[in-house]
Amino acid sequence: MKIYDISMTIHPNMQVYKNKEEKKPIFITRANHINSHVHETSITIDLHTGTHIDAPLHMLKDGATTETYDFKYFITTAKVFDFSNKDDVIAKDDLLTKEISENDFILLKTKNSFSDDFDYNFVYLSGDAAKYLVSKKIIGVGIDGLGIERNQPTYDTHKSLLSNKVMILEGLRLKEVLEGSYKLIILPLKIANVEASPARAILIED
Amino acid sequence: MKIYDISMTIHPNMQVYKNKEEKKPIFITRANHINSHVHETSITIDLHTGTHIDAPLHMLKDGATTETYDFKYFITTAKVFDFSNKDDVIAKDDLLTKEISENDFILLKTKNSFSDDFDYNFVYLSGDAAKYLVSKKIIGVGIDGLGIERNQPTYDTHKSLLSNKVMILEGLRLKEVLEGSYKLIILPLKIANVEASPARAILIED
Repeated sequence: MKIYDISMTIHPNMQVYKNKEEKKPIFITRANHINSHVHETSITIDLHTGTHIDAPLHMLKDGATTETYDFKYFITTAKVFDFSNKDDVIAKDDLLTKEISENDFILLKTKNSFSDDFDYNFVYLSGDAAKYLVSKKIIGVGIDGLGIERNQPTYDTHKSLLSNKVMILEGLRLKEVLEGSYKLIILPLKIANVEASPARAILIED
Repeated sequence: MKIYDISMTIHPNMQVYKNKEEKKPIFITRANHINSHVHETSITIDLHTGTHIDAPLHMLKDGATTETYDFKYFITTAKVFDFSNKDDVIAKDDLLTKEISENDFILLKTKNSFSDDFDYNFVYLSGDAAKYLVSKKIIGVGIDGLGIERNQPTYDTHKSLLSNKVMILEGLRLKEVLEGSYKLIILPLKIANVEASPARAILIED
């Protein structure tokens, strides 16, 4: 059983969205073995740090929180599509060449996986492509950028997906993973009443 | 496939160790749909909040960080032992009645699972019982208290387990789970160079 850890490592200098200072995780060592008998750390993190899921509330007024997702979304089969040849956007036409079925969880591998720095021109999923995925009745879509869209004024990609119960998974690391079918396990922290949650995600080779 | 979510929910008024104010999670809403087009939250949490794993560094000077655990610890079979009749401590004698094999991951169900408040007299695992588990060559032990030991001046339970590569999992919720064998999946957040990590843990009925 080969397992791929497709999660981003959380550390003080990790990439954050648009390199915003307030989005960088802060680590506080509250006790260590010099001043105490234990070592204890606290962290402050934006819930959209590293690998994380988005719930409808993130983009939709009165939208559902992360509790809206049951285990159907967290333990499932997933298809990885390799779009690492794309420089800008994954459009609907790109998806037409792929076999997509009802209840699929689609993971988009792009050039985003090949750098640990934030790329202001990260590859994203277009609004039309998101609408196409919704029409195929998938349950989730993941990407290796910290956002699933960029510079779309009305946030069409997020809104199409989140208003149709398609879970969004952002901040994946897919460099080592080849196109194909896998078992996907995503376990987000169980946090009450929020719009997102950091998660550990793994792929298991069939 | 029946799945039990054995994780504690993280929220501002959740139980924390000894009810210490500085251990309570802090939620900050950084944007909402009144002042912005998105809803975004940050949290400050002690890494020992709710359901979490402990690494050797927590109790051992120069001990290993959470990276010491590979997926063998995270996806495994587990045995749940029901000790909800015990009022104080799980001792070595209590374990002698149970069948324990090499590579087992043992989960201890106690009365701790039946309250959401912090109990200063939470049921714990004695140092001798921990040494016995180490001698059986198990890989991990979980409990439903926020600590696996209490009022032991030399921290024998933590130190025996952590110095022998036995992973500690604390803060479980096992009320709904019956004694027996299950598939256990624990996915802690992937955080660099720390002594603990909050985790989501589930049990799958065979």
